[in-house]
Formats: sequence, C-alpha cells, structure tokens
Amino acid sequence: MMRTRPLKVALLGCGVVGSEVARIMTTHADDLAARIGAPVELAGVAVRRPDKVREGIAPELITTDATALVKRGDVDVVVEVIGGVEPARTLITTAFEHGASVVSANKALLAQDGATLYEAAARHGQDLYYEAAVAGAIPLIRPLRESLAGDKINRVMGIVNGTTNFILDKMDTSGAGYSEALDEATALGYAEADPTADVEGFDAAAKAAILAGIAFHTRVRLDDVYREGMTEVTAADFASAKEMGCTIKLLAICERAADGGSVTARVHPAMIPLSHPLASVREAYNAVFVEAEAAGRLMFYGPGAGGSPTASAVLGDLVAVCRNKLNEANGPGESAYTQLPVSSMGEVVTRYHISLDVADKPGVLAQVATVFAEHGVSIDTVRQQGKDGEASLVVVTHRAPDAALSGTVEALRKLDTVRGVASIMRVEGE
Amino acid sequence: MMRTRPLKVALLGCGVVGSEVARIMTTHADDLAARIGAPVELAGVAVRRPDKVREGIAPELITTDATALVKRGDVDVVVEVIGGVEPARTLITTAFEHGASVVSANKALLAQDGATLYEAAARHGQDLYYEAAVAGAIPLIRPLRESLAGDKINRVMGIVNGTTNFILDKMDTSGAGYSEALDEATALGYAEADPTADVEGFDAAAKAAILAGIAFHTRVRLDDVYREGMTEVTAADFASAKEMGCTIKLLAICERAADGGSVTARVHPAMIPLSHPLASVREAYNAVFVEAEAAGRLMFYGPGAGGSPTASAVLGDLVAVCRNKLNEANGPGESAYTQLPVSSMGEVVTRYHISLDVADKPGVLAQVATVFAEHGVSIDTVRQQGKDGEASLVVVTHRAPDAALSGTVEALRKLDTVRGVASIMRVEGE
Repeated sequence: MMRTRPLKVALLGCGVVGSEVARIMTTHADDLAARIGAPVELAGVAVRRPDKVREGIAPELITTDATALVKRGDVDVVVEVIGGVEPARTLITTAFEHGASVVSANKALLAQDGATLYEAAARHGQDLYYEAAVAGAIPLIRPLRESLAGDKINRVMGIVNGTTNFILDKMDTSGAGYSEALDEATALGYAEADPTADVEGFDAAAKAAILAGIAFHTRVRLDDVYREGMTEVTAADFASAKEMGCTIKLLAICERAADGGSVTARVHPAMIPLSHPLASVREAYNAVFVEAEAAGRLMFYGPGAGGSPTASAVLGDLVAVCRNKLNEANGPGESAYTQLPVSSMGEVVTRYHISLDVADKPGVLAQVATVFAEHGVSIDTVRQQGKDGEASLVVVTHRAPDAALSGTVEALRKLDTVRGVASIMRVEGE
Repeated sequence: MMRTRPLKVALLGCGVVGSEVARIMTTHADDLAARIGAPVELAGVAVRRPDKVREGIAPELITTDATALVKRGDVDVVVEVIGGVEPARTLITTAFEHGASVVSANKALLAQDGATLYEAAARHGQDLYYEAAVAGAIPLIRPLRESLAGDKINRVMGIVNGTTNFILDKMDTSGAGYSEALDEATALGYAEADPTADVEGFDAAAKAAILAGIAFHTRVRLDDVYREGMTEVTAADFASAKEMGCTIKLLAICERAADGGSVTARVHPAMIPLSHPLASVREAYNAVFVEAEAAGRLMFYGPGAGGSPTASAVLGDLVAVCRNKLNEANGPGESAYTQLPVSSMGEVVTRYHISLDVADKPGVLAQVATVFAEHGVSIDTVRQQGKDGEASLVVVTHRAPDAALSGTVEALRKLDTVRGVASIMRVEGE
C-alpha cells in the first residue's frame, strides 16, 4: 500500500497553530505515514515575516508568495491557518483549481462564504475539511456530519468561545464584575488586547453559523445568526441566576423549529440550570451539547482553542484528506439539501428572566402582570423585594416567542410604575 | 450524482436495535438518500422468529436463512445486530466474500476476534464499521480513529456500561447497598435478569479492548484486559470515597505506559474526584475521557445503550459505508502498526485507597507503614479511627505499580495486628 511518492503539503500561515502543525508533521512523521499509507512532507510554508527564525522548518521552504505556493501544481493538500476572509478565500479557491484539497481552520471565512468554497471544492473534485474552525480540538464537525448522518439533529447548544467562558466562570466563582474578570483574562492571555470579537459574540456567531448549516443540512450564513455579547452581564445577574439554581453562559444555540419548517441560530448570554452538563464547563474549556432524534442527548467537551489543540484538529483532517487523495475519493461535501429557511430571532421560543425596578406601591404587580398577559407571555414565577420606596420585581416566564417578549418589555418601559428594566436574560437548557 | 439503482442493505437481527434501524430507514428514507447520494433499501431481514409481526417491514423481506441472505450477491451492505461470536463471525466474513461491506454493533465479537474481521474486510476490499459497538450513540470510534488520527492518544478512560453506572449512581445518591440498587436497576429495565456481563465487567472489558486497539494502533484482545466487577462495592466504600472528595465509578482505562513502550487496558471500580468530569455522569449515561498529546483532555458524553441511540450509530455508519460504496473507496481499516505489547495489570501504576481493620494498640501504624515501605509503596495519607479495642486504618498511597500494592496487601494480611483488609480501591483521575 505504501506509495513511494510522498504527499506534499503547503502550509499557509506559521503562527501559533501553523508552527505546531509543522512541528508535529516533523516529529510524528512516521506515525502520520503509517496512518495515511504514504509519507507526507512540507512542500512550502507561506509566511508574512520570512526573517523570523522558525525552528524545525528548513529555511528553503519559507516563502512570502502564498499564491505561487498554491499554484505550484505539485501540492496535494493546502493547510490554511492564516484566518480572515481575504486573501484566504482566493488562496483556497486557487488551491482547488490547482488540484489540491484544503484543510482550513478559518471560521470567519467558512461562516461568511462557506457555500462558495464548497462549490469550488466540488467543481474541482477536491476536499474541504475544517474541524479546527469550531471548538478547537473537540471532534465536532466530523461527528455532526458523519457520525450523526443517519439521525435528525434538533438542537445544537454550546459554549464555543473560551475567552468569554473564562470571564463568566471568573464572575461566577469570585463574584467579580465584568471589567475585573476581563482584566484577569487579558493578563493570563485568555483575552486579546482588543477582545471585541470574543466578548461581543462575533466569534461564537461564526461558529454557530457553521454548526447550524451542518446540523440541519441547510445554508446558514453569519448574517443569519442573532448575536448579543456578554459585556452587560453583571454580578447582580449572577446573583439572580444563583437564586434560580442557574449559572450564566454565553451560548451558541442552533435549533430546528417545532414544526420542522425552519431553523434558527443565535448567540447570547443565558441562564442554564446548574444540573445541565454545560453549567459545569469551567475556565476556557468549550463544550457542545447535541440533541438528536434517535441518539438523544450527547455532549462533546474539550479545549476550544490554543496552538496544540487546534493543530490536533488540523492534523486529523490532514490524515483524512491525504487518505482520500490516495483512494482517489472525496469526503462528504456540502449537504444543504433541506434548504430550510433561517427564521429571525423574533420566532425563537424560549424562557426569560426579567428584573424590573418598580415603585413600591400596591397594584404594581397587577399592572406588570397585565402587560405580560396582553402580549401572550405566560408568567411562571414572580419574586418581589422592596427597599426604600423602591422595589425590584423578578419575573420568570414560561416559553414564549422572542418577539412577544420584546413587545412586553417595550410596553413595560412605558409604565409609570416601572422605573427601569434592570436585566433581561433568556433561560435555556431545561 | 443520484444513482438509479438503490443500495441494498441486509439486516441481520431485528430486535430492539434492528427494528429501530429498519424503522428509521423507512421513515427517513429521503434524508438518507440525500446524504448518501443514492437511495438505500432493505434487501432482507434475517430473524429467528419469522412469525412475529414486524411493523413497517414487508413480510416478503423476512427470512430465517441469514446465510443465504448474505450470499445473495446483490447486497451492498450487511448490518449485523445479532450479537455474540457465532454465527455473527461467519456471517460477516461470508458477507465480505460476497461483496458486501459490514456495519456491526457486535462488541463481543470485535473484542475477541476483530483482527480476523479486519483482515477479511481488507482482503475483499470491503468496509467494517462498528461505532455502535462502544458507548451506543456517542461518537467515539470515528473521533478516535479519524479526528485524532494526527495526534498521539495517551489515555482513554470511560464509563462505558450504563447498567453499572446506574447502580453505582443509586448507591452514591441514596446510600443503598449493591443488592438494593441492583434490584432497582432490574425493576426499571436497566439490568438484565442475569446481570453478570454488566456487573462483572465483561461488557466494559470488551469495549476497553476495542478502544485500546484503536487509540494505540495496536491489537488488544479481550484476554488482554484486566477485569474486576463492581459487585463488592459497599455503602462503606462510598462513605470512604465521600471523605476523599470522590465518588466511585466502574471505569474502563486504556493507557500508554510512561515510557511509551507498552499499553494496558483494565476495567475495575475506582474512586475519582468529584471535580473530574466523569464524576458527574449520572444514571445510565456513558462518557469517555480522552487525553491526547496535542488535543489535551476531551470528553464524549451520551446515552450508552438503548434501541434508538444504538440505531443512530448504526445508521451513521451505514451512510458512511454507502458513500464509500458509491465512491468505490474504503474507510480506514485496522491500524495496528505500532504493535505495542499489552502489559499485565501488575505493571499499571496508579494510587490506592486501602481500608484495614486493625487492633487498637500502640505500634500498629508503625508496623503497617513498614510493610508499605518494604514494598516500595509510598503513603500519601493515613487516617486512624478507634472503636472498642478495634480500629480502622485508611491508607491512601502515592502512585505505585499494581504488583507492589498486591505484594503489600499480601504481607499486611499476615500481620497479627491486621484483623482484615476491608477494601482496596484504586484512585483515578487526579
């Protein structure tokens, strides 16, 4: 079975992930060869800074001309770990045109324009694998699109951003506020200097788009994903969550509507019961909970980022893609046959925890309850606490459409007796 | 892409799992066709009792002659869900000889004679998939042999038997003894009338053999797996575990030796810290914890048994195998290239919790400590409790080879001051 000619791999990007991929390809070359059925070798490494010393990589492999590298024609697989939309997209499609399959870790590109890449891969008979794009080393793309290929997935709900989970976990365990917890995350290297992509949920939203598309066999783009960050979560919210027997997590949730005719994808902070497996995901770990018709409830847990874990996912894909090359076959391509439309956030049905600052006088609860009733939002529990002429009212609702809740809140804000809406948080996982 | 000729599937066995496979193949035929790229149809269903009414299966498909069914020659894939070594093994090898790939859920057969099946599949250019053989619907075989194909797995540790986890969970939460908890499991249908295969660890040992072989790319047979059941775990053991901040689980543990030159596989009850993700796996759920060099610590969680979950795993494999048929390709076969030997239990290095009943007089602790020292087993903590001239001594050791611990215990039993060894339990997951 062992071919004489090695499979040639071009590496685009040699940062934290790329250098680890190169290192493992060298140190574990014999294992990779045995598992693939042929040796693999680095054909070239495209970098921005060619002068940087790169241990273990022969200097003659380094190039700044990524385009020339993917056009060489003798490359079997291109590993893209540069990230961002361009030039990555053009490099990937060029790779397909020149006979290479692609392994990518590029969630932003896949979420925004996955269909174009899939189409280009199919047209040129090449593979596009991207396990590393979602939840680092956690096998998730392959289980969803292969292991569960004979099942019907109804919900994917996960913690897919380690930075925000680290911050929320700190807030939960230490009682710290958001800023303080963010500072700690930054100091420890869990948050970037500009944490916007993480804390505003952009990173998680890209992953939600990818997961929803695969889970429901339809196309879900980044713009289809409702997104709310977690910068406004307060210590008071955690205190409220504790009273409910919950904690707060930034969740990516992809759901099939009850009637099966549409899907939704969203990212926002939410309360989840402490008894839910996702509640005990600590620090920067990721975990994804999957509900399927036949399989039931599954969870996948592990490190969601970092050079080594991401490299593990890239190399798993590399082995699969190389095996496909040897077999002259292709792995599963895009599966979007259901063409299910993506509904807006207003159609999502869930539960809500609403904290109101109200006047401490008779009749306020009746007024508030009437507003909920008028909007068709059924109340589960109410808790009222008075202090100095002011009172707080905590309302937890039964399941209701998000649009109905929004209407309720808008009407509540207009009540004279409601001084303010302190927080609104969705309650998931029950 | 859609072929006109449907792929033909022969189903061997139509019990809890088989009937669910047949049902989903019918009700979800369109989805399966879209995901495979061609329709699949049942070519025949081999059963023992042909007179039983089988809803949704055309009577003319039913046969009692499984051998004739797999020899028909027009069958693309054989799904084997009858279990046991024979006639399953002969039917599977006959299927390969007649041009069919095989999807099996047969852990006993794969653990005992996987190499023969792999070899037969390879010789005839057919696939052998068996995700359903370990941990039901939890994607585990595919993540281990594909997602982590570019990584080095050092340890697989899991709860792979739902019956025993249900019993241990009951004992933990209710304080019940083993017999009482077993009775409840039997009444609820979690334990079979003869629970031996579960409670004595035979079922878990078969799964450990399969997981170890895949994780370490070597051959591990059922006979290579050290096995201890959980029938002797007592309420007192759970009380001891609680004092240690632990609970007790029946674990399947596959490890690479520290020097990398050998592997071990074992099944036994063990204490694990409550903070370990496996500690919170409740009821009949399964979970498997994987430690890999680059990926770090991963966990896979879900229902480990049951008709629907197992059918989900079978159908995921069926989609993959059918896709391979269309591509005229094969999935990954056996990978046993490392040829790592399997060491015996004596060479396993772990920690121990030992409860001794001793005479309550001066010098006993010194005597006991001397025995540990003579056998090279270093003590971490000792707790001594006296009552009525008797005392109990609880010793928790540092990591030591199992053989050294056995020698220690043998010597302890010979001491006049040691009235009895109340329990010995390994401590894992720290």
